[in-house]
Amino acid sequence: MLAGLAEIADTGRDSRRGGYSRHLWQGADLELRTWFALRAERLGLNVETDRNGNLWAWWGEPGPDAVVTGSHLDSVPGGGAYDGPLGVVSALEAVARLRASGFTPSRPCAVLVCAEEEGSRFGIACLGSRLLTGGIDADRARALIDADGITLAQAARRAGLDPAHLGADRDALARIGLFIELHVEQGRGLVDLGRPVAVASSILAHGRWRLTVTGQGNHAGATPMEDRRDPLVAAARAIVAVQDAAENHPGARATVGRLEVVPGGTNVIASSVHAWLDARAPTDAETRDLVAAIEAAVGEAALVNGCSVAVTEESWTGTVTFDPELVGRFRSVLGGDALVPALPTGAGHDAGVLAASVPSAMLFVRNPTGVSHSPEEFAEVGDCVAGIDALETLLRSVL
Amino acid sequence: MLAGLAEIADTGRDSRRGGYSRHLWQGADLELRTWFALRAERLGLNVETDRNGNLWAWWGEPGPDAVVTGSHLDSVPGGGAYDGPLGVVSALEAVARLRASGFTPSRPCAVLVCAEEEGSRFGIACLGSRLLTGGIDADRARALIDADGITLAQAARRAGLDPAHLGADRDALARIGLFIELHVEQGRGLVDLGRPVAVASSILAHGRWRLTVTGQGNHAGATPMEDRRDPLVAAARAIVAVQDAAENHPGARATVGRLEVVPGGTNVIASSVHAWLDARAPTDAETRDLVAAIEAAVGEAALVNGCSVAVTEESWTGTVTFDPELVGRFRSVLGGDALVPALPTGAGHDAGVLAASVPSAMLFVRNPTGVSHSPEEFAEVGDCVAGIDALETLLRSVL
Repeated sequence: MLAGLAEIADTGRDSRRGGYSRHLWQGADLELRTWFALRAERLGLNVETDRNGNLWAWWGEPGPDAVVTGSHLDSVPGGGAYDGPLGVVSALEAVARLRASGFTPSRPCAVLVCAEEEGSRFGIACLGSRLLTGGIDADRARALIDADGITLAQAARRAGLDPAHLGADRDALARIGLFIELHVEQGRGLVDLGRPVAVASSILAHGRWRLTVTGQGNHAGATPMEDRRDPLVAAARAIVAVQDAAENHPGARATVGRLEVVPGGTNVIASSVHAWLDARAPTDAETRDLVAAIEAAVGEAALVNGCSVAVTEESWTGTVTFDPELVGRFRSVLGGDALVPALPTGAGHDAGVLAASVPSAMLFVRNPTGVSHSPEEFAEVGDCVAGIDALETLLRSVL
Repeated sequence: MLAGLAEIADTGRDSRRGGYSRHLWQGADLELRTWFALRAERLGLNVETDRNGNLWAWWGEPGPDAVVTGSHLDSVPGGGAYDGPLGVVSALEAVARLRASGFTPSRPCAVLVCAEEEGSRFGIACLGSRLLTGGIDADRARALIDADGITLAQAARRAGLDPAHLGADRDALARIGLFIELHVEQGRGLVDLGRPVAVASSILAHGRWRLTVTGQGNHAGATPMEDRRDPLVAAARAIVAVQDAAENHPGARATVGRLEVVPGGTNVIASSVHAWLDARAPTDAETRDLVAAIEAAVGEAALVNGCSVAVTEESWTGTVTFDPELVGRFRSVLGGDALVPALPTGAGHDAGVLAASVPSAMLFVRNPTGVSHSPEEFAEVGDCVAGIDALETLLRSVL
């Protein structure tokens, strides 16, 4: 494992799920933030936390027109070791190499750690970059609640931030002249092409919807089958309908990966079920079509069991096409199109959110398993080093 | 609400699920145990905790050949106010009336509170009575774990019990000459018959099985539909198959009311799903047939999504037929068959477990909603008083 990743390999392990659970401002995330600050300070960088909990480590004076590189340190529940941290570790390593070589940048430079990229605690992915860019309303964000009923505003205060200052941060954003995020690939594109590193071309449109299925709670032993309105059976039909709808929409992906049964007793027919839908497709219109088809199918599925469904949109991100000029230039700097493919992805990233406001680009590093958001996520040390090489080369070309 | 129930109406409320969550040796359950002990002591009873955490309140010297009446104080998650506590409060009230009237019993008498009747913390229903009667192996019981990974042995020690002494308690059991449990009805039998009180005739065979569906965890956005082995879609098909199988078996009931998605992230295809099956039918053979049909259907359902299923039996209770002589005698004492129906139930009870070892009987009190294991569970005060009247009459007839 890459040395930088080995340093945090014991932080936030999840013995129940496997892998790592590192969620915003909770134990493991706070440990990683402290680790990052010390690591960056040892490199001679100046670390600051912005109004939204994003961490910046500056080489020299902050912006304007800075080249900023980084990723995130939080994880999905039971996630892999690379998704996020690889980009942070690679950014620190690339800056360390530049400094060690005596390189003098012509522009400011920073390493950025974005907060709550996975949305695992408060439900909105890329929350830190969305807040920074004004991509989410601050009042709505402050009212988000975690699984323990704690609001983002309360959690921010406990983390030392003033919740009144959450939200669009024009000063911080104005400092970025270019953002580059390195990330482990979350698919088999580079494996199939036999290359270690790619430049990102686009990100699928995607969003999250909460499906609340309501029925009638009752006793599992005393209630005849014909008298039931069981929302978990209705939710089960809905989950199958979600898969069927995605399969009927070319290029689309739809998933239910989180589900809460209320009240959740073995001998209790549920009274309601909350299921979270993650839906994605190549274009905004195709994604909206997919979700409309799912809403209709889910409503019909619930009716079979005498239940009702309410669908609430929790987040939405349109298709991101990374600046083709930038993509072409970076591929050229890294050795040309034959060596460095351009790859689309279905995964959302802070670089995708920032791309709406500032020039942004991404590097992907080969993942031999093709698996992500799971302990099986992996990258060979040699490919990680190739990623750092590529990032260093890009930084030299733009600094 | 009945006065005794009103005293505990604020204990263990569950603001998230609604209703009450009162689980073995956790805050609310400990409060209820303390309340019970004080309440019984004020009546002049001597309270003791047996080796398995069941509470006994003795009128005079303990056994042998005692008449014991009671029920339980724990609940399902988000349960109603009556399931369990009504039987305990009614037992205390009936004994209080007997004592106040100057009645002198010819046999010992006790009020019994059985531990973990719902199995909400450690997964095995009627755990206290099963341990007492030797209906569960002590080593197996000690190793049971709750949702936080705490074993029954650890929890018992924290509650002041010696876990080495958990298990069959012949001395305690030998003291019981007759057990009578009063319980709110968990169906509409008495509503349909227009009567307030019934005597129980039988309990469906029932058990719990854990279904573990295993697939491949991955990224919800980056993984094409055709590359997935999503265990939550497989579990969804299985849940529909469970309902279909129960509907194909006359008189049978099968439910999935508890489900855990691992790891449970919105943007994560699950790696595994645990679902708990509650299955019941009129006879042992019919229940075994039902579960075999479910196992086959669930296995086929999982294969559609490239997943596998493991099925583990967690508990089993054969059909209970309450002693017909005792049922007949009690109906007669209470006014005759025309006034006091005999009703079967699909719900398990400590009286059903104890019936294998000692003469046991049950009284049911009308529930106008027919709903149980839910905040909608209800009993009119007048019907609760009719239940206490009936219990007092039975106690007078046997003491």
